Amino acid sequence: MASIGIGLIGTGFMGKAHALAFGAVRAVMGDVPDVRLELLCDTPADKARTMADQFGFARATDDWKALIADPAVDTVSITTPNMLHFDMALAAIAAGKHVYCEKPLALTLDQARAMRDAARKAGVKTMVGYNYIKNPAFTHACKLVREGAIGDIVHFRGWVDEDYQANPELPWTWRSTIADAGLGALGDLGCHLVSMTYGLVGPIDSLIADMQTVHETRPLADGAGRAKVENEDTATALVRFANGAQGSISTSRSAWGRKNRLAWEVHGTKGMLCFDQERLNELQLYRNDGPTAKQGFTTILTGPEHPPYGNFCPAPGHQLGFNDLKVIEAAALLRAIRDNHAAYPGFDDAFEFEKVIHAVALSAREERRVKIDDL
Amino acid sequence: MASIGIGLIGTGFMGKAHALAFGAVRAVMGDVPDVRLELLCDTPADKARTMADQFGFARATDDWKALIADPAVDTVSITTPNMLHFDMALAAIAAGKHVYCEKPLALTLDQARAMRDAARKAGVKTMVGYNYIKNPAFTHACKLVREGAIGDIVHFRGWVDEDYQANPELPWTWRSTIADAGLGALGDLGCHLVSMTYGLVGPIDSLIADMQTVHETRPLADGAGRAKVENEDTATALVRFANGAQGSISTSRSAWGRKNRLAWEVHGTKGMLCFDQERLNELQLYRNDGPTAKQGFTTILTGPEHPPYGNFCPAPGHQLGFNDLKVIEAAALLRAIRDNHAAYPGFDDAFEFEKVIHAVALSAREERRVKIDDL
Amino acid sequence: MASIGIGLIGTGFMGKAHALAFGAVRAVMGDVPDVRLELLCDTPADKARTMADQFGFARATDDWKALIADPAVDTVSITTPNMLHFDMALAAIAAGKHVYCEKPLALTLDQARAMRDAARKAGVKTMVGYNYIKNPAFTHACKLVREGAIGDIVHFRGWVDEDYQANPELPWTWRSTIADAGLGALGDLGCHLVSMTYGLVGPIDSLIADMQTVHETRPLADGAGRAKVENEDTATALVRFANGAQGSISTSRSAWGRKNRLAWEVHGTKGMLCFDQERLNELQLYRNDGPTAKQGFTTILTGPEHPPYGNFCPAPGHQLGFNDLKVIEAAALLRAIRDNHAAYPGFDDAFEFEKVIHAVALSAREERRVKIDDL
Amino acid sequence: MASIGIGLIGTGFMGKAHALAFGAVRAVMGDVPDVRLELLCDTPADKARTMADQFGFARATDDWKALIADPAVDTVSITTPNMLHFDMALAAIAAGKHVYCEKPLALTLDQARAMRDAARKAGVKTMVGYNYIKNPAFTHACKLVREGAIGDIVHFRGWVDEDYQANPELPWTWRSTIADAGLGALGDLGCHLVSMTYGLVGPIDSLIADMQTVHETRPLADGAGRAKVENEDTATALVRFANGAQGSISTSRSAWGRKNRLAWEVHGTKGMLCFDQERLNELQLYRNDGPTAKQGFTTILTGPEHPPYGNFCPAPGHQLGFNDLKVIEAAALLRAIRDNHAAYPGFDDAFEFEKVIHAVALSAREERRVKIDDL
Repeated sequence: MASIGIGLIGTGFMGKAHALAFGAVRAVMGDVPDVRLELLCDTPADKARTMADQFGFARATDDWKALIADPAVDTVSITTPNMLHFDMALAAIAAGKHVYCEKPLALTLDQARAMRDAARKAGVKTMVGYNYIKNPAFTHACKLVREGAIGDIVHFRGWVDEDYQANPELPWTWRSTIADAGLGALGDLGCHLVSMTYGLVGPIDSLIADMQTVHETRPLADGAGRAKVENEDTATALVRFANGAQGSISTSRSAWGRKNRLAWEVHGTKGMLCFDQERLNELQLYRNDGPTAKQGFTTILTGPEHPPYGNFCPAPGHQLGFNDLKVIEAAALLRAIRDNHAAYPGFDDAFEFEKVIHAVALSAREERRVKIDDL
Repeated sequence: MASIGIGLIGTGFMGKAHALAFGAVRAVMGDVPDVRLELLCDTPADKARTMADQFGFARATDDWKALIADPAVDTVSITTPNMLHFDMALAAIAAGKHVYCEKPLALTLDQARAMRDAARKAGVKTMVGYNYIKNPAFTHACKLVREGAIGDIVHFRGWVDEDYQANPELPWTWRSTIADAGLGALGDLGCHLVSMTYGLVGPIDSLIADMQTVHETRPLADGAGRAKVENEDTATALVRFANGAQGSISTSRSAWGRKNRLAWEVHGTKGMLCFDQERLNELQLYRNDGPTAKQGFTTILTGPEHPPYGNFCPAPGHQLGFNDLKVIEAAALLRAIRDNHAAYPGFDDAFEFEKVIHAVALSAREERRVKIDDL
Repeated sequence: MASIGIGLIGTGFMGKAHALAFGAVRAVMGDVPDVRLELLCDTPADKARTMADQFGFARATDDWKALIADPAVDTVSITTPNMLHFDMALAAIAAGKHVYCEKPLALTLDQARAMRDAARKAGVKTMVGYNYIKNPAFTHACKLVREGAIGDIVHFRGWVDEDYQANPELPWTWRSTIADAGLGALGDLGCHLVSMTYGLVGPIDSLIADMQTVHETRPLADGAGRAKVENEDTATALVRFANGAQGSISTSRSAWGRKNRLAWEVHGTKGMLCFDQERLNELQLYRNDGPTAKQGFTTILTGPEHPPYGNFCPAPGHQLGFNDLKVIEAAALLRAIRDNHAAYPGFDDAFEFEKVIHAVALSAREERRVKIDDL
Repeated sequence: MASIGIGLIGTGFMGKAHALAFGAVRAVMGDVPDVRLELLCDTPADKARTMADQFGFARATDDWKALIADPAVDTVSITTPNMLHFDMALAAIAAGKHVYCEKPLALTLDQARAMRDAARKAGVKTMVGYNYIKNPAFTHACKLVREGAIGDIVHFRGWVDEDYQANPELPWTWRSTIADAGLGALGDLGCHLVSMTYGLVGPIDSLIADMQTVHETRPLADGAGRAKVENEDTATALVRFANGAQGSISTSRSAWGRKNRLAWEVHGTKGMLCFDQERLNELQLYRNDGPTAKQGFTTILTGPEHPPYGNFCPAPGHQLGFNDLKVIEAAALLRAIRDNHAAYPGFDDAFEFEKVIHAVALSAREERRVKIDDL
């Protein structure tokens, strides 16, 4: 097929990750369509030009609408702050562009639903940046579960913790407001955990939750007193899955020492499977199999037997990194475009994941059990 | 003081642990009263005699009431199945004996309350076998928390998992009945976690919970069909502490691969502290202190700086084991008797711990928030 | 059989360990002869009396020769500083007593040989305190090797490190002299590693070695300058085993952070087995078996399937500690006495282990390959 | 400066790694010269064209001499089997091209010396693919050592193990011959360890070594019997450093379960520092600092405080992977070219590293101490 023109909005953490992913995906994977790094958008225009030069984009702009309208742009990557996703995604969809949007889809579930509906109607391909589910270790974990390596799933526990808001004296920012940031830890971190949960155990039926703003105010950057933190630092939910299993999911953005602890354990009738993103190349598998005297948790180090690790490196144990996961994600989008099938996870899938984080917040606020399907 | 005469009821897992503890405590600690292993009770009488000989008890009986009545017995150790604790403890208290009872106190909270009240009234010393809180690593953890090493406590998570009921084909026993066993995982395991939680964070104010019987029936040992499992295999609660912190506690007796995973993490405003009983000589401490480039979780290996480790071994890192924790527990009881102060944890403390497990079960059954003080 | 009377010389680290072991062994094991704690020796006499009372010995003395001569003493435990082992062991043997001696046997190999020869001739039972080889995890490791779980052994690496001499400003003591301490790290630590090496791989045929006194002088305790450290802080040897395998063994008493890191890895043609005494209840097993995608190191947590763990605790994963290993050791000696067979490791075995540490020192001093059989 | 034209010879494991590194380096780093992927060489020509298309190279060739001669090529990447490095590097140097060569430089030390001398004389920039020393965790380790965080270095131990030749039934290949492969494990793996050793402790003065061919013959691929393995599967050396420290280095290509275990520990007078490449984002630091009760090994997770991690990701703990290390390496070369200084490690440095592996082999063959400067 013809090559695919990429327009990228944003040059921060995720903007760079998208640029690196599109820059590397063909060399890594081989069997993906060629891409052209057409247009990069940031403000001011100077910055856009500098970063376009650095990232290898042909052109730069400070006008995201122009980027979307650009005829050479086939796919729009949206890596701006969450509050901007909604307008940009709707505009891109309206322009018939494929959309690669960072998570969460939007600040509210209503916005997310509108984005999903628009994408469905337009028939464009969508991909949402739930990169951790692209980890070969995670893909292998799902395969093991599917094959019955740990029997029927009966329980699940998951946590996703960081410490970027652990310091009580960190200044107040827009991240602390519902209007600009929406949810707190749930939106930044919690939805990643949900995406893994759904891959491993399937949909959640209902939940009850509690949440907390650990640091209720933060100092204003200008020193003029303190302002209120409106969204949650921690949240935990007791979940019931559609398949009858139970479990819990937790998140904190104020957990000192945790840098990217997206961790979970799946309890099955024949074994257990555990993972921690801070050791992203390791999977822990226990199976009730063979003599008890030799049983224990086996640390499986990712290697070529866990595709697509081998596309990065033919030798096992050499370790993938965070940016490699975005390459796998970009490849999935490009193949979906080429082969005209839905990419996973697209807006449909992300909407399901994000229902859960909104259900957690709703349950905690209203102190009642929330059925996911009621959202 | 005069030596203390020990009467021990039961010779199973905990019976042996008590016998070993009383046998070693003076040699290990030095500054504890001498003990006399007076009388051992089990049935049938033959077994009692054999085990008395093995354990070093002077005499044996198959009549626990005779043991309690024996004038040479000052302290009664109760290590029988949980359903028997109530009658034995009340009888021992009535006879004016000190009581060292295994956890949980009783099958129901009403029984536990009656035991507590009787002991209070009689003024005897009581100790309950929450041995894990006697671990020098735990004592050190509590000291670190108290000294503010991790700042104010804002969140807590705990788990206690084993796999002794993970196999779906394990035969049905009395352990599966409410009448004979009372609670399931909560009673066997969960109360241990609560005892640690209270030591680290203090009392729980209220909670909401969910629980599950993973394996709803089990095969009868005689092959004649299957019988119902009446109590829970897993339970999880979202808790709110009196001090304002939130958190969660979880337990499962069906968690393959977990042998004694009594683990927790305490989140503070300045750091985090983590522990796993399967590595009982290690504590994980993160402090937001000094240059970020050198920060990380520090694995503190228990040593003489963590009393009373040095009573067992003058060299650090040589490792204590499970039975050593019972020695520390026995020492605490003997000193309380000698010095005429309350032992920790006594029936009062255990009653507070056990309120929580009953609150978890109640919340899960009635699907509502339960205030601990309402029990 | 009649009970066995124990005479214990020394009340320090190892003295206490012996006392605790003899105090607990019958209760733990059941099927061992009964012991009587007859006589405890230390100086001054006051201390001996105090410790006899604490340890539960019937009598005390400050005269080790009297202890050996005492007719109620059947077995003599020698836990004094190494320089005293030789005279005491020879006297005990001459008196026809069984001897339980701490390692190393003596300061020189000639002394060790004389001790071995005397014991052989007298026909008394001997046991040497190489306690780490009594760990059920180690016994299981040897069983796995013997059963071929990792194929033929082709390579071995071992380390035994502590940090008790890591601080350069630690005062000079007799431990730094060849006359009083003999070897340094090799004698304190290295011989333990050899005992494990021999159990796993069998005898060493020859070696080449290097060693070093890291801190060449130490301050005198009285502040009057510094004195020379005569023995080694570290030593490493390249070894060739009788079975054709190669490997290396290393020791340091100046390794900051290592508290009891007695660790090794055995490389086989079908797998690998690893261990670290600082996690003494864990064994790491890798087998090239089954699908590569599921291979990895399995952490085997010690449990009842690894005898005699079950004698201490019927539940897996509850953890043994250092003192428990001495109980297993004491049981082996008592059974050897009862059943009239050689105890393992006796003076014969210890002599073989200790040849190796002297060979390491000799090779390092003379800068040449040393054949073990030439010693 | 003008952009730098890259010619890459080879498209295997390392060929792809170079292609990915040059493709990403500007986007990741920003402050490096722009590169043009000019010409890719492999055989047959078809394969070269296919891979050039995949890797993003402008042109392809099956003639490496043509690549070197191509005027648009400024820098030649040599990623072919080791036996070809010598001719290619000399030709590239002769053509005045900068050379980025995979390790080891050559099959023999004489060849390596000739390569070093030619590069020196020609004044071209050289870089050798010792990528593991580009890990931010390693850079940080060296900084900690330099700053005295662990005091004076007194001892070092290193290992580098894989299991790619662990299976005895793996067919014989050219890798088993001295003529085509030169050294075995030492050349493939050992030299990586030396490069780290030199960075941490500095040059080795002399060593004594032993080595072994574990699997002495291997089956021929065609089934016609077995052929001899000429080079070593394992090697270990006792080393003395120029600074007076001692230590050991070991390597095995037959170590089941080890996938990329390039690990080391540096013993200092004030602490210890440890690392394992299989957890490449973690450093273990112990310092004798502050209260003993809080001491332990701290796991430092790589983050933006450890440059240039932040160029890949602004959030700590998100993990770098193997290919990221090559990006850092490529950046170092490009900056050296731009700024006209020597790249590290260049041919001079690599020659020093590789002296050591040849010294190990020489010492083992001749059973004598080898002074590194005598090579």
